[in-house]
Amino acid sequence: MPDFTDKLSPAQPDGPTTLAHERAQSNVSVKELSEYLLSSDGFLQRQARILPIIQHEPLFSKEKQQNLSRPERFKLGLARAKLLRRLKDKHEWNYDEYKMAEYLVDDVSPYFLHLEMFITTIREQASEEQRAYWMPLIESWKIIGAYAQTELGHGSNVRGLELEARWDSQSKEFILHSPTLTASKWWNGSLGRIANHAIVVAQLLLPKPGLPNQYVSHGPHPFIVQVRDMKTHLPLEGIVVGDIGPKYGYITMDNAYMLFDHFRIPHSAMLSRYSSVDPHTGIYTKPEQPALVYGSLTYVRAQIVHHARLVLARAVTIAVRYTAIRRQFQDRDGDKGGPEMAVLDYPTVQIRILPLLATAFALHYTGLSMRSIYQDTRKDVERGDFRSLAHMHSMSSGLKSLCTMLAADGVETCRRAMGGHGFGGGGGLIQLNNDYLSKPTVEGDNWMITQQVAAYLIKKMTAAANSPDGIASDETDSIFKQFIRNRRSTKSDEAKRDMLTCDRDIVKSFELRATVLAYEAYEQRVHKKQSWNSLLIQLHKLSKAQSQHILVKTFFEALSTEKSLSDSAKSILWELYRLFALFTMENEGFEFFRCNAVTRSDLDSLPARVQELMSRIRPHAVNLVDSWMIPDYLLDSSLGRHDGRVYEDLYNRAHRLNPLNQITFNPNYWEDEIVKGSKDSGASILSKL
Amino acid sequence: MPDFTDKLSPAQPDGPTTLAHERAQSNVSVKELSEYLLSSDGFLQRQARILPIIQHEPLFSKEKQQNLSRPERFKLGLARAKLLRRLKDKHEWNYDEYKMAEYLVDDVSPYFLHLEMFITTIREQASEEQRAYWMPLIESWKIIGAYAQTELGHGSNVRGLELEARWDSQSKEFILHSPTLTASKWWNGSLGRIANHAIVVAQLLLPKPGLPNQYVSHGPHPFIVQVRDMKTHLPLEGIVVGDIGPKYGYITMDNAYMLFDHFRIPHSAMLSRYSSVDPHTGIYTKPEQPALVYGSLTYVRAQIVHHARLVLARAVTIAVRYTAIRRQFQDRDGDKGGPEMAVLDYPTVQIRILPLLATAFALHYTGLSMRSIYQDTRKDVERGDFRSLAHMHSMSSGLKSLCTMLAADGVETCRRAMGGHGFGGGGGLIQLNNDYLSKPTVEGDNWMITQQVAAYLIKKMTAAANSPDGIASDETDSIFKQFIRNRRSTKSDEAKRDMLTCDRDIVKSFELRATVLAYEAYEQRVHKKQSWNSLLIQLHKLSKAQSQHILVKTFFEALSTEKSLSDSAKSILWELYRLFALFTMENEGFEFFRCNAVTRSDLDSLPARVQELMSRIRPHAVNLVDSWMIPDYLLDSSLGRHDGRVYEDLYNRAHRLNPLNQITFNPNYWEDEIVKGSKDSGASILSKL
Repeated sequence: MPDFTDKLSPAQPDGPTTLAHERAQSNVSVKELSEYLLSSDGFLQRQARILPIIQHEPLFSKEKQQNLSRPERFKLGLARAKLLRRLKDKHEWNYDEYKMAEYLVDDVSPYFLHLEMFITTIREQASEEQRAYWMPLIESWKIIGAYAQTELGHGSNVRGLELEARWDSQSKEFILHSPTLTASKWWNGSLGRIANHAIVVAQLLLPKPGLPNQYVSHGPHPFIVQVRDMKTHLPLEGIVVGDIGPKYGYITMDNAYMLFDHFRIPHSAMLSRYSSVDPHTGIYTKPEQPALVYGSLTYVRAQIVHHARLVLARAVTIAVRYTAIRRQFQDRDGDKGGPEMAVLDYPTVQIRILPLLATAFALHYTGLSMRSIYQDTRKDVERGDFRSLAHMHSMSSGLKSLCTMLAADGVETCRRAMGGHGFGGGGGLIQLNNDYLSKPTVEGDNWMITQQVAAYLIKKMTAAANSPDGIASDETDSIFKQFIRNRRSTKSDEAKRDMLTCDRDIVKSFELRATVLAYEAYEQRVHKKQSWNSLLIQLHKLSKAQSQHILVKTFFEALSTEKSLSDSAKSILWELYRLFALFTMENEGFEFFRCNAVTRSDLDSLPARVQELMSRIRPHAVNLVDSWMIPDYLLDSSLGRHDGRVYEDLYNRAHRLNPLNQITFNPNYWEDEIVKGSKDSGASILSKL
Repeated sequence: MPDFTDKLSPAQPDGPTTLAHERAQSNVSVKELSEYLLSSDGFLQRQARILPIIQHEPLFSKEKQQNLSRPERFKLGLARAKLLRRLKDKHEWNYDEYKMAEYLVDDVSPYFLHLEMFITTIREQASEEQRAYWMPLIESWKIIGAYAQTELGHGSNVRGLELEARWDSQSKEFILHSPTLTASKWWNGSLGRIANHAIVVAQLLLPKPGLPNQYVSHGPHPFIVQVRDMKTHLPLEGIVVGDIGPKYGYITMDNAYMLFDHFRIPHSAMLSRYSSVDPHTGIYTKPEQPALVYGSLTYVRAQIVHHARLVLARAVTIAVRYTAIRRQFQDRDGDKGGPEMAVLDYPTVQIRILPLLATAFALHYTGLSMRSIYQDTRKDVERGDFRSLAHMHSMSSGLKSLCTMLAADGVETCRRAMGGHGFGGGGGLIQLNNDYLSKPTVEGDNWMITQQVAAYLIKKMTAAANSPDGIASDETDSIFKQFIRNRRSTKSDEAKRDMLTCDRDIVKSFELRATVLAYEAYEQRVHKKQSWNSLLIQLHKLSKAQSQHILVKTFFEALSTEKSLSDSAKSILWELYRLFALFTMENEGFEFFRCNAVTRSDLDSLPARVQELMSRIRPHAVNLVDSWMIPDYLLDSSLGRHDGRVYEDLYNRAHRLNPLNQITFNPNYWEDEIVKGSKDSGASILSKL
């Protein structure tokens, strides 16, 4: 309905004018930088190809989805997921193209587990015969599967799972049974309403040889189980399964609970590539190489590390564009009648956003490196060489913990830096934030898994201390041995470093701090025999220090070996490197100081140095975020639009797209009527549920 | 529908057993402590009185509300708010009792602004005649009002508001007009769908004397304006008003946008207690004492500070009870077959939750103190004595910034400490978290308002430096003068302190650090004439240091003067004091060190000292959170239930209360059908909006 507001414009200078100015003032080429960042694996080209197809489908419109109820939103998510799969068939998308489409639509797919853990587990843990039977059904989506490991009472400690798979040697079947409520499967994605099959992880109980009524547990094993009828789609008898209900995010995912009541499955249900039960004797065959189970967990963690850069880049894109446009207060020392300042020109806004801009780049290089180390290690393992596995497992654990923390906290920091409008739905961060808040917990809790890094480093330090003069087996060993030799000779580790001007010295400083913390942990655990649990806080700090060292070192090495970039691009990347590293150092200043990894005078200079770096990066901020090439469709943000039409879009969402404005309410408290002219009352709303 | 899961129990030891053990092992009396904390102003008694009335009403059941859409949830919120008002009439509740009922129901009321800023502004800024007319209408809720100040383009900088109120000397009316889109009112609560009146803040434009066609602005002024028809409840002609759409939280609040097209309001609309326009001459009368406008802003900030303790206590209650019950992994150094450990026994869980438990108590004392300082200052001001106003304004700004940050971040820290189940709707933190995330921004952005603290302290330091030997005007002046005298005599400030054993020395350390930062800011701004904006980060740190000093000092003084408590209660409160202060110090270690506020050796000892304090507090954790007496109805949390039936309740919510489980879906991607046996498709869901 047209009204007088249709012709109004925002106050000048408006967003488009401001962003045009921002883009013109920087010599950073968005084209060059975006290709450098995103085209090596075809990401950019893929995005350009898939985006118009997605935007063409009305079902993928995000305009009003925030207004839906959980059941409606889930239905929409399922409808979209079906359409995505049909588009895959129609356009003959490969896996990467399909994933790109999912990334742009930005709904967690109810089929997610089918495509990831379900298929991966069959591929890796099923026997050849099992694979031959199941893979065609899975790939054609004739069956939909999930992965049911976590239980109501047990997550990280997989050995504590309570669900039982008891071998019945009479009928040659396994009997799945949930002895307690806490044995209920819980959190298992795609299983709550959708999947008709699942990998079910249960304690394998076999009769003791010679004592057929006594059973012994051989630990958790995976079974493939049909859980719903293929026609009615109702749970099979003996199974209770459903969706666990609303969560912070993942609104389109049906995380499940599932219990079994003496539910019988055939011998062939047990995935038997590595371990098996002889159907005639009931005798168990153990897997030869237990380390193999590392594989999929580490893969998922590496994926999460690689993904973090785009999450943070998305939040930073919105925050930089909006705070460049948003104006507030005149300069206190300037003319009273002057224009208001862009809020991004306030150092108190810069200190929240620009280090995160730098962090997105740090995450980028480490994400790439993590992926290639994963691929190398996988090749080694397939050749039967397991030496690099422990390193990769440690690295992926520490980085998963640190990088998801940086990205999750970074999204919220960006949101708050945007002030009032950051709290609104037009910011574009609500769903991202709600979904991403799962990441600090899933695939290994961020505090729990840092123990794996510390245990690895203590082992490495023990080896180095036992043989400081031997030949180093790898880079960590070499650093640790040198540290031990320096201690022995009372030679100071802190060779004069100049962190304020020498980029390589910054890496050395991070290296020394991580090494000192590793040595302290080694001393306390190995020499002083302190209990593991009493050291946990310290071990967490060690993991963080080591992972920060990796981020800084990887960033430094990538820039040092880069040869193809223009000077302007390279020089701004070096500034981002410095900002990331020195901002990180400032925040943990005392720890660096205590480890002799920074001098007192350098530490005192850090705040000024960080502020100077921010003022150098500031003019390029908009071009730097543009280089991540995150499309408006994905951002779904008034504040972060590429064209800068912030206020027009906020107004449009409020005035034209908000269903609440279709309803006229009755504010009189003495009348039951809620909606003017209708019988709608409070009781009638509740009764709908 | 009954099924085999009805009879299942969780694995042993279950939650009730564990909590009974936790409660028995501590000598802290919940009864004593809760009365000490919450009965002085009748809070506890009020809660006990109101709770059963609320729980008796089906409309206030929270069981399924997370599943509603925004429009449905808003309708429910309005229905509840009406019922609350009717219960107020029925039970003749006073204001505090009504607020208690609202607190327990835990919906932001769509009438909130009517009861707060609308009525307050009329009370404080309307002339006597205006009050006589409006107050009866307001108090009887015959009209519902809102407060429309913030605009799409302007928040904190009130002087930058664009909406115009132009005096028409012909018709003796004001003409309200929005010249741009950014002039649209925005965020104004209770106005989007509900209010029929509003205080509208607009630039007062009056003709220049002798030049009737030229107008001059006299700055923003408040007007009372009818915006909707009292019968049809539709906007009046010349006004466009509506709800801005979904947000992070505040789902039951109709935050508004509103624009005016040459909308005429009578001369009597301008609230004229302090300033007025002569209807005959068009001549403006200025307010005598502009400081008076501080009043309501400071009141709201003081309220927010006081409220923060209960927000954090709620999250900590849930986190402590759940992590005491949740078990994970055996002790790495213990028996392999031993029981799993309660996760609250891991120092890495303690370090996240127990300092926040201590923080809730710190917030309590400062909240009480803030409230009584506000009341004293108000009495002073009403007597015409404005001297304490600047101090109170500075204190309320700094504390609002720090305390809302502690509570908002604390809620999320508690959530993450609860691992996987913390991400679920049964945690009970989703709505609290979403609503509270507004607090770091509203009523003065947390980074912006710290300038007000710094400006105040620089002024105080300047005065002290100019007259270090004069008589001190207040406590801050006395501390600052002493600091200047010590500097002059090169006497060291850091008299030997022993933070690890002397509680008073801890306060001294926080005092010195804040004073050194104030002195540095004074030097840079007053002597070195550095620009204000270049100092902003440093000024923010100063405000934080000063506010932390207030929290620590107030905690210390409250315990030092407390005489009625038992030894066991007092001794645990002292441990909480130490934990709060030393944990805070450890996190900002280098700043304390740089300010000579802590010795290097004390700083090195802090981590061990903090860990020791946590192990002393740990056995009392459950009784300490019990003492906040937050009812299960308010917690609305499976994880935080007083009876410890965590798993039973999680399962009940999932299996019996989740409407998604009423729907059977069709997972076949080649079929459009979403819901099995119905015509529901993706397009039909979108078309509902």
